Amino acid sequence: MNKKGINKKELMDVLNMHDISPSHPRYRSLLLRDKMAQAYREGILADSALIAHGRGEAFDYIFGEKTNPPAIKAIRAASATLLLAENPVLSVNGNTAVLAAEDMVELASLLPAKVEINLFYRTPPRVVQVERVLKNAGANEVLGKEGDDFLPLKGLEGPRSRAHPEGVYIADVVLVPLEDGDRAEALVALGKKVITIDLNPLSRTAKKSSITIVDNLVRTIPLIINEVKRLRECSRQELEEIVMEFDNDENVSSSLELISEYFKRDEDS
Amino acid sequence: MNKKGINKKELMDVLNMHDISPSHPRYRSLLLRDKMAQAYREGILADSALIAHGRGEAFDYIFGEKTNPPAIKAIRAASATLLLAENPVLSVNGNTAVLAAEDMVELASLLPAKVEINLFYRTPPRVVQVERVLKNAGANEVLGKEGDDFLPLKGLEGPRSRAHPEGVYIADVVLVPLEDGDRAEALVALGKKVITIDLNPLSRTAKKSSITIVDNLVRTIPLIINEVKRLRECSRQELEEIVMEFDNDENVSSSLELISEYFKRDEDS
Repeated sequence: MNKKGINKKELMDVLNMHDISPSHPRYRSLLLRDKMAQAYREGILADSALIAHGRGEAFDYIFGEKTNPPAIKAIRAASATLLLAENPVLSVNGNTAVLAAEDMVELASLLPAKVEINLFYRTPPRVVQVERVLKNAGANEVLGKEGDDFLPLKGLEGPRSRAHPEGVYIADVVLVPLEDGDRAEALVALGKKVITIDLNPLSRTAKKSSITIVDNLVRTIPLIINEVKRLRECSRQELEEIVMEFDNDENVSSSLELISEYFKRDEDS
Repeated sequence: MNKKGINKKELMDVLNMHDISPSHPRYRSLLLRDKMAQAYREGILADSALIAHGRGEAFDYIFGEKTNPPAIKAIRAASATLLLAENPVLSVNGNTAVLAAEDMVELASLLPAKVEINLFYRTPPRVVQVERVLKNAGANEVLGKEGDDFLPLKGLEGPRSRAHPEGVYIADVVLVPLEDGDRAEALVALGKKVITIDLNPLSRTAKKSSITIVDNLVRTIPLIINEVKRLRECSRQELEEIVMEFDNDENVSSSLELISEYFKRDEDS
């Protein structure tokens, strides 16, 4: 499997199965769909994961399945924030592991940042499977494993309150693709900068996070990797300026405007 | 299970599992999600069904999880069209069977109309399961079963071209909740009136159908049942006037405008 998580043989199998030529404009989306279904059958994902993926597909479709200008802006601010962090942590759930394990591991080694497993529907077998996926993608150290110590995050209850004492618990910056709203809010309330990747600009996560990247994480993580490589030549002051100039509320509003315009354009046609 | 497909014990189990009180505004959506996951585990649904359900959830969320005025208009025209039909057929796929079997069967007996199974990813065990769900919901006769005769619909290939000689093949009006675009287009090209229920007003199905109800089928079918009961007192001429006054393109545009306004309103807040 190459860096983009796309294996050529896999791709051809899916295209043949769906009777779709490689030139089909949605072949990438269909491939991801198939990866998710496969991972569900293997027990990596909870029931709700496929449905959540479908919700993401709908928003991605609305955004034209491309990374839009507000997302590019947020990616820039996120990359600067990650480079400025003292204890950055990349939080990985089931969907993130299935869709972007290689990219998450590459980003973690580049910064460097810690990688921590955080599952909404946490079960021991699923934690073991996500750990396996991350290790196969090249991760050296994974936090949040079964048997690992954990401390509860203030404001949360149950498995979602778990945080590794050397990971999310002490992190100043947390990248949490596909986080749930309660957890994003609790992390921000604890003074952490929360960077999230969420295709729904109306979600509570999108509104509560410090930096919201309204985009498909499959496209976002490689773009963050590129931006981190570019920005690490910058001085601390230059990075701080990039972060200062970014207004998350304003940026989320731009994504909403894009959707509104998109439907308006179609309505007029 | 009652008419709405909601069983009180089931509901409480789901709410407890998700640790959500019955007063939670999204409890109905969570219940449906759970029904879908359960049906997937039982093999009734294809992999893509849960993801498709998620796409629907996203659009339903955008529409405020309620039936909006353009949908009400389309439901009225659809009900009049079904009453005027000589050979109406209700087409049922996996998701429709899981979410609304009782309502589809009730509507079929009310009109009366035939019920035909049409699966996008057709496999013999899945056809048998959908037939079982429909029979359990009270269906007397089900077309499109395994071993049933079928004729190919012009313009389509493979399992999607199947039509029962006494069902969709000779139908003048077909109600196809959640139909795929190619098939909706082929049915219209064959001179049939196609009534579809599709939460995505930008889908090819929404654009190609004769009457597009942009709503969640779980809410739509009971509303069609009510409307059919009300309109069957009308004369043929009155029904024809209702159909004549309905403009599908204009009505789909109203749904697009609703989405556009929805995102605009939020953006300003």
